[in-house]
Amino acid sequence: TNYFKIAVLPGDGIGPEVIAESIKTLNAIAEIFQYKFQFTYGLMGAEAIFQTGNPLPDETLDLCRDSDAVLFGAIGDPSFDNNPDAKVRPEQGLLKLRKELGLYANIRPLTTYASLIDKSPLKREIIEGTDIQIFRELVSGIYFGEKYTEPEGAYAYDVCRYSSEDIIPIVHMAFQEAGKRRKKLTLIDKANVLETSRLWRKICQEIAPEYPEVKLDYMFVDNAAMQLVLNPKQFDVIVTENMFGDIISDEASVIGGSIGLLPSASIGDKNALFEPIHGSYPQAKGKGIANPVASILSAAMMLDYLKLGEAADRVRKSVEYAIENKYVTEDLNTKQSYSTNEVGSFIADHI
Amino acid sequence: TNYFKIAVLPGDGIGPEVIAESIKTLNAIAEIFQYKFQFTYGLMGAEAIFQTGNPLPDETLDLCRDSDAVLFGAIGDPSFDNNPDAKVRPEQGLLKLRKELGLYANIRPLTTYASLIDKSPLKREIIEGTDIQIFRELVSGIYFGEKYTEPEGAYAYDVCRYSSEDIIPIVHMAFQEAGKRRKKLTLIDKANVLETSRLWRKICQEIAPEYPEVKLDYMFVDNAAMQLVLNPKQFDVIVTENMFGDIISDEASVIGGSIGLLPSASIGDKNALFEPIHGSYPQAKGKGIANPVASILSAAMMLDYLKLGEAADRVRKSVEYAIENKYVTEDLNTKQSYSTNEVGSFIADHI
Ligand SMILES: CC(C)[C@H](C(=O)O)[C@@H](O)C(=O)O
Ligand SMILES: CC(C)[C@H](C(=O)O)[C@@H](O)C(=O)O
Repeated sequence: TNYFKIAVLPGDGIGPEVIAESIKTLNAIAEIFQYKFQFTYGLMGAEAIFQTGNPLPDETLDLCRDSDAVLFGAIGDPSFDNNPDAKVRPEQGLLKLRKELGLYANIRPLTTYASLIDKSPLKREIIEGTDIQIFRELVSGIYFGEKYTEPEGAYAYDVCRYSSEDIIPIVHMAFQEAGKRRKKLTLIDKANVLETSRLWRKICQEIAPEYPEVKLDYMFVDNAAMQLVLNPKQFDVIVTENMFGDIISDEASVIGGSIGLLPSASIGDKNALFEPIHGSYPQAKGKGIANPVASILSAAMMLDYLKLGEAADRVRKSVEYAIENKYVTEDLNTKQSYSTNEVGSFIADHI
Repeated sequence: TNYFKIAVLPGDGIGPEVIAESIKTLNAIAEIFQYKFQFTYGLMGAEAIFQTGNPLPDETLDLCRDSDAVLFGAIGDPSFDNNPDAKVRPEQGLLKLRKELGLYANIRPLTTYASLIDKSPLKREIIEGTDIQIFRELVSGIYFGEKYTEPEGAYAYDVCRYSSEDIIPIVHMAFQEAGKRRKKLTLIDKANVLETSRLWRKICQEIAPEYPEVKLDYMFVDNAAMQLVLNPKQFDVIVTENMFGDIISDEASVIGGSIGLLPSASIGDKNALFEPIHGSYPQAKGKGIANPVASILSAAMMLDYLKLGEAADRVRKSVEYAIENKYVTEDLNTKQSYSTNEVGSFIADHI
């Protein structure tokens, strides 16, 4: 079929601005390939709290469940961050959505662009040629374990819990991806301290023989935080638990020098969500300076997921064309830059 | 008094080699300043397991309790890492020692050396002038919470728990240090997800008014992992919980380009332990290539702790002299390098 129901959640900060450019791009794709995307908008995040008191209203959740894919912008608002007593937070909306839709695998490709390599904080010889795919478990671990704060603030706890069923599917996914790439899979854990990490290691060891062509190795998370900066090229596919994945994938996202370009996919058995890696970046809101490329490339990942690979390639080519021709936002070129809207239109037109 | 009882735990890998050079340096100090250091050696880590079955034998623990300070080398052995079923691990020895001695504050200074700045994986303009002091909580959190693995491997958990008493002392320490430096303290946490992080934030907020000259700010750990690479100069003093501190301080340790130079102190109310940040580095064991400077600078931190500030400065000056004159191990100069032993002797002789 050529008809797809897409739930669109612009969210907070620069979310709405970058999402608008993805829609533009998808409309261009629809025209050429004769697809029909039906976009239905939903509220989530701080915006949803301000309007409904709930960071993930039921209608939004139902909308997402009923759609073929979810396009998401960004979440988060500084007014909540420094208030330890806030009972409702924008992030709860995103966490609940991940959990309810069972989006257990967060996939973050880190590719570097030759023409942008000098934007990297790392030296050219260290970063050049880096190409990493990170698989972060997204619906278990310390994010979703039991948590408690004693009412007087005497103590608090968060439980990191993993069952083998939480781990097995994403490990298979990561092995499969490694098999299609450079055939190296690195499990990042803290197995010298944590029981949950030892369970991850055990499961990876058990699954490894099913993928004899892939070399599995292990790295402690503290060492991984160092190796990403010292020698990122050593990595091919990484698989890791939720919290370590949050930290490591964000660290990885900046070494290329262009976080404004990095997309992500969060995949479950029934649903999938696509979002740029950059957050809500509230300081940039409304200024027209946000880079729409990460959101547009997230839309490309969505097209892949919908098995519209040709269309996805078309989007990526158009993005590359814009970058090569320096038709970019100010984060990538301070001398001559274009607005969010201009860059989005350039990419859509080139399609 | 001029008499000090020092427990010496060389540990695993390159630990014994670098510790030997610290002892050389301290002996030189003892001669000049007319101090008497009584060094008593203890077993710990993989070595202790091989010899006694216990990574921290009782005699070692008693020795440490009875001494004025503990000098420690490194811990860890690859034969344990990939064995999820090992019941006894070298790391347990170090963790138990930290807990038993109540070494709640792990302090890691990150200074950059002008003559070594080109060793950094980061571009010169990003790293130059970076000077950070990290305070990592060391005896609570997920390292020491309840942990369990279901015997069949169906699930596992690790509990991250903090009481306010675990947090308050190190927060005061960090504020005091910030007051002596550039007056900025950053709490690194994940308060948008974890209850324990919100407790840290609340306590920092409550304590802040006692240090009106210090500016307190907050950063999510995923963002911190990015900011350390993008703009490390923005940090002065950092305070954080155990696991985040493990990851963030290791990441910080490589951005200067010379992890072989970085010391650390682990301080409690009654005891203190000093160790280089680099681990046991088993591949280098016995080759005479390990950089002894991190261990020697850890001995300098020990002298400061023993209120022998003049002697500590003398050690640091001698180290700087060796670095300026390129009398260094191969990690810092591949063209002409000296052995562990040669560098240690050079530093000791110059004192
Ligand atoms: C907003 C926050 C809860 C979220 C997370 O920690 O998972 C974000 O950092 C991410 O990585 O998507
Ligand atoms: C050896 C290991 C248990 C230890 C830790 O994680 O604390 C080490 O990485 C450190 O930072 O001292």
